[in-house]
Amino acid sequence: MKGQKSHEGLSVKKEDFSEWYTEVLEKAEITDIRYRVKGFMVIRPWGAMSMENMYDLYEKALQKKGHKPTFFPIVIPEGNFKKEAEHIKGFTPEVFWLEKVQGEEKLALRPTSETAMYQMYSIWIRSWRDLPLKLYQRANVFRYETKATRPLIRTREFYWIETHDCFETKAEAERQVLDDIKTTEEIMHQRFGIPFLPMKRPSWDKFAGAEYTVASDTLMPDGKILQQPSTHLLGQNFSKSFDIKFRDENGKEQYVWQTCYGPAISRILASVISIHGDDSGLVMPFCISPIQAVIIPIFTNENKSQIIKEAQKIKEMLEEQGLRIELDSREEKRPGEKFYEWELKGVPFRIEIGEKELKEKKASIFTRDNRKKEYVSFSKLNELKKKGEEYDARLISKADAFMKGKIENCRTKDELKKAIREKKIGRISFCSTENDGIKCAEIIEKDIGASVRGTLADKNEKPGANEKCIICKRKANKIVYVGKSY
Amino acid sequence: MKGQKSHEGLSVKKEDFSEWYTEVLEKAEITDIRYRVKGFMVIRPWGAMSMENMYDLYEKALQKKGHKPTFFPIVIPEGNFKKEAEHIKGFTPEVFWLEKVQGEEKLALRPTSETAMYQMYSIWIRSWRDLPLKLYQRANVFRYETKATRPLIRTREFYWIETHDCFETKAEAERQVLDDIKTTEEIMHQRFGIPFLPMKRPSWDKFAGAEYTVASDTLMPDGKILQQPSTHLLGQNFSKSFDIKFRDENGKEQYVWQTCYGPAISRILASVISIHGDDSGLVMPFCISPIQAVIIPIFTNENKSQIIKEAQKIKEMLEEQGLRIELDSREEKRPGEKFYEWELKGVPFRIEIGEKELKEKKASIFTRDNRKKEYVSFSKLNELKKKGEEYDARLISKADAFMKGKIENCRTKDELKKAIREKKIGRISFCSTENDGIKCAEIIEKDIGASVRGTLADKNEKPGANEKCIICKRKANKIVYVGKSY
Repeated sequence: MKGQKSHEGLSVKKEDFSEWYTEVLEKAEITDIRYRVKGFMVIRPWGAMSMENMYDLYEKALQKKGHKPTFFPIVIPEGNFKKEAEHIKGFTPEVFWLEKVQGEEKLALRPTSETAMYQMYSIWIRSWRDLPLKLYQRANVFRYETKATRPLIRTREFYWIETHDCFETKAEAERQVLDDIKTTEEIMHQRFGIPFLPMKRPSWDKFAGAEYTVASDTLMPDGKILQQPSTHLLGQNFSKSFDIKFRDENGKEQYVWQTCYGPAISRILASVISIHGDDSGLVMPFCISPIQAVIIPIFTNENKSQIIKEAQKIKEMLEEQGLRIELDSREEKRPGEKFYEWELKGVPFRIEIGEKELKEKKASIFTRDNRKKEYVSFSKLNELKKKGEEYDARLISKADAFMKGKIENCRTKDELKKAIREKKIGRISFCSTENDGIKCAEIIEKDIGASVRGTLADKNEKPGANEKCIICKRKANKIVYVGKSY
Repeated sequence: MKGQKSHEGLSVKKEDFSEWYTEVLEKAEITDIRYRVKGFMVIRPWGAMSMENMYDLYEKALQKKGHKPTFFPIVIPEGNFKKEAEHIKGFTPEVFWLEKVQGEEKLALRPTSETAMYQMYSIWIRSWRDLPLKLYQRANVFRYETKATRPLIRTREFYWIETHDCFETKAEAERQVLDDIKTTEEIMHQRFGIPFLPMKRPSWDKFAGAEYTVASDTLMPDGKILQQPSTHLLGQNFSKSFDIKFRDENGKEQYVWQTCYGPAISRILASVISIHGDDSGLVMPFCISPIQAVIIPIFTNENKSQIIKEAQKIKEMLEEQGLRIELDSREEKRPGEKFYEWELKGVPFRIEIGEKELKEKKASIFTRDNRKKEYVSFSKLNELKKKGEEYDARLISKADAFMKGKIENCRTKDELKKAIREKKIGRISFCSTENDGIKCAEIIEKDIGASVRGTLADKNEKPGANEKCIICKRKANKIVYVGKSY
């Protein structure tokens, strides 16, 4: 889309996060909320191309770990949907149903695909030789949100990947949960630059139908937690409801052990935009940005053809290295307007080539995140890929530092209240994340407006022997993290 | 999926096409029809990976021609859906509706996305500077088929790409229609090996809401025509209904001219499977096959580690060239079983490495389409990519020859009847493809069970001056093609 407004820049600063987020999505042409259906958004080319790059990196990582792609139907027959008792309870209020057709079973639009896929798993899996079975699909899913919706963050249709794995033993399934957390770390954190706390959720907050849930909590600039990919140990709950059995090496029939994992690409994009962006607009990670470097020729009528020719040569040289390059030679826009536009869209590098550059065989490079300018010889431009890696590393460090500074140890309820007021995550000693801890969690919710997110899943954090729950003063058995959430 | 049955081979020959098709989809693990909802199929990894490769090639071609990706909502509010009169009439019987939610507008699941996208186009397009606008989306779409469904061919959910373009003038829009046909030629024919007739449909058979439609008719082995991508000159029908206007260079307001184009990847896969396959199973084009060459080590306990090491080296060498390679070192299957399995799945090349090969530093290569075996030195294996191109070229020639032999000039109704009985496409002189030709078309339909597909869109074929319509004997104005269809 040719954005007639995009060179105007932003009218608000990032410290007014909520307005900034709304405006940057619109002006950088990520999404459009003017579609006439609540909670359904249009994703425009700059957003769609970013998501495609994110999908690519995520899917490659999953494939490398033995997952294979599939496409399952978008509709789930009511009979399937109602097979797992906890799952029905959890998801029924959120389901979009299709108008029933006479003589056919009632159909739901998938809110998630367990009950679509596991019917087939029960057909496909016969023997231990069929295990492990590790499949994923790239899919749009649907949940009838009644709360206020926000583009990319809380929507009624969203775009994700869901993996659904089956194993012979519980131990293997538990290892898969840890491996899913590792995948989140490798991709969402190490590539996209979004740090997170892998939270084993309290029992009252797990996925409907799971034994336990580990969700990655990320922090938005306004101090609110946004839940990112979660992975669930489904145990044998679904395999028993869907009759997914295998004959083991001794010929004995057993139910499989299951896990599932769901990175929502559209929602991760929301974090990418929010965490890295600044007062001038988006700051896109090099590995995601649809355009990694834009070349802006600065010409007069006399030297135009020469300069464009040189710019074209540089473009081709960089594209040969597999980089995504745009040569912006539009005549209806002045260079300054182009600078604003591409800064707003978060393009990592801007390469300027004018009369002086042409003569000296050098190019001016502007770097989006730190706004530094360099003047390098054409022959050194082939280091752009390395520069891109350094750029991404800077985004990650900056995001890490932000997150680290926002976690605060709180020894009393008042300290917790203060931390939450200061838009931080409180780390507290807590009685229990099994059912009997729910009362203390409710007190925190009611008095402080924050929720108990869970315990660290990849580290065994224990309170000291004499520590007490900061709410009920009983013996503390857990270290939990508390925050406001979206 | 580990296919416990896939080494068994097929029980029917391709000449029994209908049974062959059903069996090859199941045994090669392309689709599974045992999902409990009519017309909704599961696409298994071998099918999904093939489709991903097809999507990749198609989307790259569209992007190169200036199309940009988007994601539009899957739901269309009833008010949008009912804006273009012809479109409603054509699509309403096929629409899945969602259960209405109190206080919200009724929603349709998209059968195609004109009425979702054009609401936004009317917001985005303001000036001639915003044109041309060329967007596409990769999407699943839904049509309530009442006829018998067949996996990949006629389903209630299918997977396609849809492009939606806007222009200042009719001439540009007409050029886009021709360019869409060229894209079909470049990708579906020149890459996937599926020849087609670009048929400008008779006026009574155009897309609901279009000025005219050009559809690519392909021929299946059973002599039936399967319609593949179609492109539509929408003219100003939708721009007037959706109020998509631009101010031209003279400041005058005008409605845009529109086209749309829809390659259904899942359906093209049906043609790929049907056209190229043989009695041993699939024959996958090199550019589509999820695995382009499989390496089968043939070892004893003594030489196992040495042979696997060599096979691994070859795998890495070929992967460095960007090829998709599998090393099948499973011990639970004998080499012969593996041969059958990968032949059934249509993998273009099989590289065998055993004791003799290791000693002589040579590999045996089996080529799937012509079943030839070669014995080449390891160093020559890096020519595999070139061999792959030759392999695809052979598939194309073979498919072209098949198609060419199936088109027959018919001078009388009896000749046409005979051609259709012989599973051919009849080429006849015909009165008119505007409305007054419909009577002759209905006679052909009734008496011969075949339909008038249209006139060649990329060539101006004219009957001789004295030629008469073979049905009504009035003056012939058109050369049309007639065939049975799915």
